[in-house]
Amino acid sequence: MNIIEKYNKRAREVNSLLCVGLDSDISKLPQRFLGMEYPQFEFNKWIIEETHEFVSAFKPNSAFYEARGDKGALELKMTMDYLIANHPDIVTILDAKRGDIGNTNNGYVQSIFDWLNFDAVTLYSYLGKEAIQPFLDRKDKASIILCRTSNSGSGEFQDMLVDDKPFWQIVAEKISNEWNTNNNCMLVVGATYPHEMKKIREIVGKMTFLVPGVGAQGGNVKEVMDSGKNSEGLGLIINSSRGIIFSDNPKSEAQKLRDEIRGYQ
Amino acid sequence: MNIIEKYNKRAREVNSLLCVGLDSDISKLPQRFLGMEYPQFEFNKWIIEETHEFVSAFKPNSAFYEARGDKGALELKMTMDYLIANHPDIVTILDAKRGDIGNTNNGYVQSIFDWLNFDAVTLYSYLGKEAIQPFLDRKDKASIILCRTSNSGSGEFQDMLVDDKPFWQIVAEKISNEWNTNNNCMLVVGATYPHEMKKIREIVGKMTFLVPGVGAQGGNVKEVMDSGKNSEGLGLIINSSRGIIFSDNPKSEAQKLRDEIRGYQ
Repeated sequence: MNIIEKYNKRAREVNSLLCVGLDSDISKLPQRFLGMEYPQFEFNKWIIEETHEFVSAFKPNSAFYEARGDKGALELKMTMDYLIANHPDIVTILDAKRGDIGNTNNGYVQSIFDWLNFDAVTLYSYLGKEAIQPFLDRKDKASIILCRTSNSGSGEFQDMLVDDKPFWQIVAEKISNEWNTNNNCMLVVGATYPHEMKKIREIVGKMTFLVPGVGAQGGNVKEVMDSGKNSEGLGLIINSSRGIIFSDNPKSEAQKLRDEIRGYQ
Repeated sequence: MNIIEKYNKRAREVNSLLCVGLDSDISKLPQRFLGMEYPQFEFNKWIIEETHEFVSAFKPNSAFYEARGDKGALELKMTMDYLIANHPDIVTILDAKRGDIGNTNNGYVQSIFDWLNFDAVTLYSYLGKEAIQPFLDRKDKASIILCRTSNSGSGEFQDMLVDDKPFWQIVAEKISNEWNTNNNCMLVVGATYPHEMKKIREIVGKMTFLVPGVGAQGGNVKEVMDSGKNSEGLGLIINSSRGIIFSDNPKSEAQKLRDEIRGYQ
């Protein structure tokens, strides 16, 4: 199934646009996991069981696993095997921010789509469509292209004007008009830039946005919903990581954020 | 020692600007390695021993190791342990094309600089200096920023005009003037764009370029040397991967390319 359809189906079924970010930084895990053989995996399993009923997507960031070398790679794989076995309807996104030239990308495609079995991956656009084609060719997967990122310094390059348009707008137009021929592209649009999000929504129609930056980074749910939801009340994958997984009660935090999002749908 | 000084010292000592790319795609390894317990590591060890006397840097591309999951991660680590133990004067670069927001980059810093112990890593600039700071802060390491990539479609975004300047020029100016305060930045400039390389050399003074694209991708050594070497006859790390490592005789191919480069120095 097309991954965007998979997401929309799940989002409708459980009435949620929430994504929980499995940014399972080993240095922040609760004490009780640290003595275990597979601490990141065991923590993830716990977070997944606490939160799955409220979410439509899970998104580990690769950096937190790579930090632990081959051990981290294995625990990310164990996490994915567990998710696929127990919650196959939930969309899985690897936040890896990859992108190399042509054939070299086959290595990443193999690793992320075929070995780990993620549904989707985040990618840079800077090398051009010709470079990213091995990802775009995978009709059974989704490519989520960095458009406007949530960090405070994102404007340094992203706000530069090309033909009187900011660079993030050029990226949105190109992905929407030229890259998305397989209907398997999404965009990363940070919750911290609702004005830009509104403009991007006008440009790209129903395309789905992965939205980081709610919670710890300061993004506001009402502004995101007002600026970003598409004509079907969908089109957003709203991610929260630290604010949920390292809270005292991940289950109630996930439910609370899911409910808040629902309120504006 | 500053990594750029380490490179210059080595380049002077062995009189070579050659970097061998350890793009050890498992599907292309010679048959005799495939039955071994650690095929990528054993192949790398062989390539390193055949070529080390002719090179100043080795550059594995992470994609070819990630393709094999935790096994690949371990064999990349074994390769680095071997290089550091046996050839500590040679600069090591992970071609990983990374870049996330602020704190998340600590995971990559930990993985690439501290666990694997690479001297340098390739990075995207799109998220801005504020995001990339954890890499730039490492004075003992080098950050190699993608400026003009070697692939045929690189112009799609990189040639767009900002204030009448192509985007690759803006990147070069920013890195040179604003990002390189620790003198630990380099630029990726493809051998396939010698005209752009010449312009970038004019902008950035002595800054070092990592130059992919010679050999299989069609870049010409004479053009690269004429366009790219700095006022000291240095400033270039000229990479060849497939053209050397999968040739019938990696040793003689490395020597040949080293000699060709020397001829234009």
